[in-house]
Formats: sequence, structure tokens, C-alpha cells
Amino acid sequence: MIQQLVAGIDIGGTNTTFGLVDESGRVLHKETVSTEHFPTPENLAAVVCGQIKKSFEPFAGQFELKGIGIGAPNGNYFKGTIEFAPNLKWKGVVPLAKLFSERLNCKTLLTNDANAAAIGEMLFGGAKGMNDFIFITLGTGLGSGIVANGEIIYGHDSFAGELGHIIVFPDGRLCGCGRYGCLETYCSATGIKRTYSDLLIGHHEEMDIGTVADAKYIYNKALAGDKNAIDAFNYTGDVLGLALANSVAYTSPEAIFLFGGLALAGDFIFKPTIESFERNLLSIYKNKIKILPSKLRENDAALLGAASLIWKA
Amino acid sequence: MIQQLVAGIDIGGTNTTFGLVDESGRVLHKETVSTEHFPTPENLAAVVCGQIKKSFEPFAGQFELKGIGIGAPNGNYFKGTIEFAPNLKWKGVVPLAKLFSERLNCKTLLTNDANAAAIGEMLFGGAKGMNDFIFITLGTGLGSGIVANGEIIYGHDSFAGELGHIIVFPDGRLCGCGRYGCLETYCSATGIKRTYSDLLIGHHEEMDIGTVADAKYIYNKALAGDKNAIDAFNYTGDVLGLALANSVAYTSPEAIFLFGGLALAGDFIFKPTIESFERNLLSIYKNKIKILPSKLRENDAALLGAASLIWKA
Repeated sequence: MIQQLVAGIDIGGTNTTFGLVDESGRVLHKETVSTEHFPTPENLAAVVCGQIKKSFEPFAGQFELKGIGIGAPNGNYFKGTIEFAPNLKWKGVVPLAKLFSERLNCKTLLTNDANAAAIGEMLFGGAKGMNDFIFITLGTGLGSGIVANGEIIYGHDSFAGELGHIIVFPDGRLCGCGRYGCLETYCSATGIKRTYSDLLIGHHEEMDIGTVADAKYIYNKALAGDKNAIDAFNYTGDVLGLALANSVAYTSPEAIFLFGGLALAGDFIFKPTIESFERNLLSIYKNKIKILPSKLRENDAALLGAASLIWKA
Repeated sequence: MIQQLVAGIDIGGTNTTFGLVDESGRVLHKETVSTEHFPTPENLAAVVCGQIKKSFEPFAGQFELKGIGIGAPNGNYFKGTIEFAPNLKWKGVVPLAKLFSERLNCKTLLTNDANAAAIGEMLFGGAKGMNDFIFITLGTGLGSGIVANGEIIYGHDSFAGELGHIIVFPDGRLCGCGRYGCLETYCSATGIKRTYSDLLIGHHEEMDIGTVADAKYIYNKALAGDKNAIDAFNYTGDVLGLALANSVAYTSPEAIFLFGGLALAGDFIFKPTIESFERNLLSIYKNKIKILPSKLRENDAALLGAASLIWKA
């Protein structure tokens, strides 16, 4: 019997990773190209589709290509388009799904990277069997995918699930979106850097010469017992816990998964987050909603997520 | 051909209203009894079921009873129970749906009143044809029902959609739930009373002797041009608009419906709410999401909502 494979494509501002994924979430092939290298989306589609065809050859006969799943910034699931993505040089509305489906002649679905990863978590990670959960990526910004009644919430325009831009403090930090107090200005790699920097300034301390205070640096400082670094994690968790407690009042998920760089800090981030979460929850929700690390492998998550769009469909 | 009718039952802390509703949302019969009058839920079920049977008699032969829909505080849709409802004297977990389905021998569904009204809005009100919307009741507290992908979001425990208890200001007003800064301490009949009272105190003014400053009183004052009353509405709208803008980041609804006493204040509440909403929205959501008054008739909304649980199922 012919089995099926899905091509997963993760388009990021810097790199595009693509590959072949089977129904169990096994990655049979994986490649990366530089997104910036391609002046137009047509160029990218031509090259990536060529490579997918090539990589599929060893499997032909035994497998067929079920479809193509794409995770991309500002991806519109309903239209298969990328719309005004600030991190890509292709401007305006790009009919990306069409560029791929035409070339490989199969079903192509597209959504933003966080939604894709959330579906990946549902099919291949810690959310197996869950109908209601929230997936949070703590990267440069804060991304999210919300699953309710077993389905991603896309909203009327496909742009639901932007929890990074919930305003947590109306007069808070300036966000890249132009507003003030967005969650991602506190709870992200960028956010914890700002917090850490504020703490240093507040304590009239300076950073080690020659270092860049990225989230990894702050994590290593915390590991070494540095009080400012530990406080930065505590503050980040405090704000995140409050925002997640509010999120529960929307969709009452069974669990909330944290993914991405900051989530790898383990107890440094989970402990204060869970503490603040439980403290801020309405009593009917207390002690029954889990905050968990994602079970997706960091390196394959985006690819698996993209592929899972087709496996879930 | 035999047509179908649904019995809708709205259980409130003071009164229980029930009646018969046809598929078009026409109320063919309506009765009210005092909830407080019944020492046990079994007593209530016995009397209400008896009255439903009686009221159904004129329609027998032409109609059959398709089912019973119940809207009740702290209603658990999955279990058909009322759980620890603070406004009812029946304590603990009450298997209410079972008490009705046993007696009338038909399908019985139960949810909280705001979810029921949201489904009513979808079937019989302004949300016809919408798959993604939010329904807000501005009563003594603030209730909500969230519809995404055409379905009410119940969450894993059936208690999703408690937007009244989103914390908007972490150090804000004390809420009946024991926490601080919940949305309903600002945006509800009770909330606007607190705001109006704060404004009077701040301006060293006193209330007219012998009056109770309920929302209707503040509305009449605003109509008469009273600055404190108008400011109270403006502040309420300001907070509500911010909270609704954040809500959009969760489910990106096509529209948000406002229902209940405060929503009847028309421009006094809608204008500042919409102004704050648009100002606080992330740019991708601006100028495309409607904030609308509910189209459900105030008097029949709860009953229609309850009945619509069965019509929607």
C-alpha cells in the first residue's frame, strides 16, 4: 500500500527550512536555505519545490505526497497568503500557498508559525488528545496558537491568537507595534533583556565588558547565582503568569505549553510563572490547569508544525 | 407534518423564566416563578416541568417537544450541572439537566446564561451567519460568551468565557471574587456606580437626597447633561474598549455584541467604548471589527438563549 508523506516548510525572516514528514512525525528529510537570498517569493518557491521533488525521489513508489504545509510570519490560513510581514522583504500580500500548490500540484495550507507549532504540539507533542490548550512561543517576540474545541482559533480574518500584543500595562513599555505595554515587551527574549538591563541600571551596575545580554547570557548568569538575572526571570514569570491567568478566562485550556528559548530556562521561568499564574487565577480555575514545556524538539518544531497543518486537515 | 418546539428555561437567583420557543425564535408561551421560593432543585424541576407539560397541551398533535435548554449561573455544559452558584441557595453540584430530562423525557442541555444568550444572538439576533463573535452582558456583573469557528468556547471544564474576571488593573478595585482589578468592577452596572461615586467624592459632591445611584439613574443624569455621569460613562467605555481590544488578540471576532442594562445607554457607552477600542487595537485589527448592540429583545433574551441551546445542537 502506498503511504503518505507531507512536505513541511517553515519560512522565517532569515532562513527557510523544509523537509518531508511522515504521519508519526518522523522527519525523513530536512534542508535549509536563506530566505533573504531570494528577491521574490516566486524564486523561493521555484527552488524549494525543485528540492522537495528531488528529496522525494528516493521515496517515490512507496510514498505519495499528501500535501504541503507552510508556517510563515503573518500567514493567512483562509487565503493562503503572507500579508505585510515586517520581517520579510517581500512586501504586501504574497499568494504563497498558490505558488507552491501550482508547482507541486497538491493541496497546500499555510498559517503563521505559532499556529503551525500549536498543531504540531497537538499531533506530535505534549497536547496529544487535548481539545483545549494554548501554545506560547517565547522567542524574540511572543507568539501564540490557541486551540479550542479541537481546532485552532483563526478568527474571522485568520489573525487570531496574537497574545504577544495583549496590553498588560496600559502605560508600560513601548512595543515594536507602536503601542505601549504589550505582553511581548516583557515576556520574550527581548523583554527579559530589557528587564535585566533595567535592573542593572537600577542597581548602578554594568554589564560584563564585551558581552551581549541575550536570554542565554541571562540564563547562564542566573545559573551562576546572579541576583539580577534571577530577578529578571522572576519578573518575567510574574507578568507571564498574570497574562496566562487572564487567558484562562477566555478559553479555559487543559494546559498551556511554553516553547522557545526562554522556556528552555526551566525552573527559572516555570517556577515564577506558575506561582503568579495560580495566584492570579479565578478560584474556579485554580490547581487544575497545567503549564508545561513544549514536547516538540526545538530544531524540528517549525517543520513538524508546518507539516501537521496537512496531517490535521 | 409535526413541527418542533423547544422549552427554554432561564434560572436566575431571583426568578426562573420558562417557555416554549419555535425554530424561528418566536416565544409561544412564557411564565415566571420565584426561584427563591423552591427549597430544592427537585421542587423547582417538578413545578416547572408540570407547567411546561400544561403549556404544551394546546400545541400537542401539531408540535412535539424537541428538547429542553437551560441557562443557569455556573452551568456546566458537559455535565448538565450547576456548580457552586453563589447566587442560588442550592449549594454544591446540582444535576439540574437530569432533573428535567427525567421528568419530560427529552434531551436537556444546560449552560451558563451568557453562553446561552450568545447562542441566542447567533440563531435569532445580530450574529446570524457569524462564526466568530463575542457576546458581552453588562448587568450587575459582566458575563460573556465567546464563539469561535461557529461554536461556543466551553474550554476543557465548560467554564471558559469569564471575561468579567480578566484582571485589567493588577492593583485595581476589589472584586467580589476576592481578587483586584477585575473587568466587572469597572464595566458593569455595579462598576459604573463605583466610578460615579468616586467622581462625586473626588469633586466633593453629594448625591441627590433619597436616590439610589443605579445605572439607570446615572443614565438619566447623563441625559440631563450631568458632567460626572457623562464622565462615568466615558471612563467605563475607556476600560471596556481596552479590554475588548485585548480580547480581539485572542479570537479576532467579526463583531462584539453588548447586551444588558448598560448597553441600553446607547452612545453614552458605545461612543467611548468604540473610541478606546480602536485606539488600543493592534493595527492589523483596526477598523474592521464591529461593536454592536445585541439584537435580542431584552425581555426574551435569556429564554431565547436557553432554547437556542437545543436549536443549535
